[in-house]
Amino acid sequence: MEESLPPGFRFHPTDEELITCYLSLKVSDVRFTSKAIADVDLNKCEPWDLPAKASMGEKEWYFFSMRDRKYPTGLRTNRATEAGYWKTTGKDKEIFRAGRLIGMKKTLVFYKGRAPRGEKSNWVMHEYRLENKPTFKTIKVCYI
Amino acid sequence: MEESLPPGFRFHPTDEELITCYLSLKVSDVRFTSKAIADVDLNKCEPWDLPAKASMGEKEWYFFSMRDRKYPTGLRTNRATEAGYWKTTGKDKEIFRAGRLIGMKKTLVFYKGRAPRGEKSNWVMHEYRLENKPTFKTIKVCYI
Repeated sequence: MEESLPPGFRFHPTDEELITCYLSLKVSDVRFTSKAIADVDLNKCEPWDLPAKASMGEKEWYFFSMRDRKYPTGLRTNRATEAGYWKTTGKDKEIFRAGRLIGMKKTLVFYKGRAPRGEKSNWVMHEYRLENKPTFKTIKVCYI
Repeated sequence: MEESLPPGFRFHPTDEELITCYLSLKVSDVRFTSKAIADVDLNKCEPWDLPAKASMGEKEWYFFSMRDRKYPTGLRTNRATEAGYWKTTGKDKEIFRAGRLIGMKKTLVFYKGRAPRGEKSNWVMHEYRLENKPTFKTIKVCYI
């Protein structure tokens, strides 16, 4: 797709577009695919391997990810990879469309090593979810 | 063009792309046109009329503009419209490609009324020019 676009055209969706035009379709139908957003298992991928797995993107890469697997206790989601873990930063942001809450956006930073002694990296993830059906998430990864 | 793109795809060129993929072609051939960048006479358009004249864009609008007409004295370029004038702000930025200077970027703010008593507005213009052949400029307008 991106190769066939004229110079300067890019995939730069708004938060609202990511939710209404992509994530909602994926949640409704697991078979939904898009040239712009690749499927990925975040527990099996280090952040620096993600750009190569993306369909397109230069500074931001987009993915669909299934709901995080829970720890046996069920209390925390597992955001670890082999090399480190994603840690939530800040508060979740509400995404509205025409005044109606359509989803949430969470920001996470990747730490190398094991919590709580991990070393902060420059890899950042924005995780979009529907409020009612969090089976899939849309992920935007960037290196800041 | 934009209507036929999937959701989330936009014209978001880098400074370098604006110069090498668009402005250079316009300077080489006045007949060059692009779906992304409309021709405009900035002296005849108030900033708030520009979005409607653009080919596409939601928060940023792109244009080709001919070299500013000079005052009879030849000392200053005429950046006035009927309702006000564009005033340079800050220093010009050099645009490099692979270490070579390919163009300059100037930032201007629109003031309503007449200098020096104009009232600052939220309309901002980024003006790209080739260093050697400033017959045409590429203009990016936004409302901040």
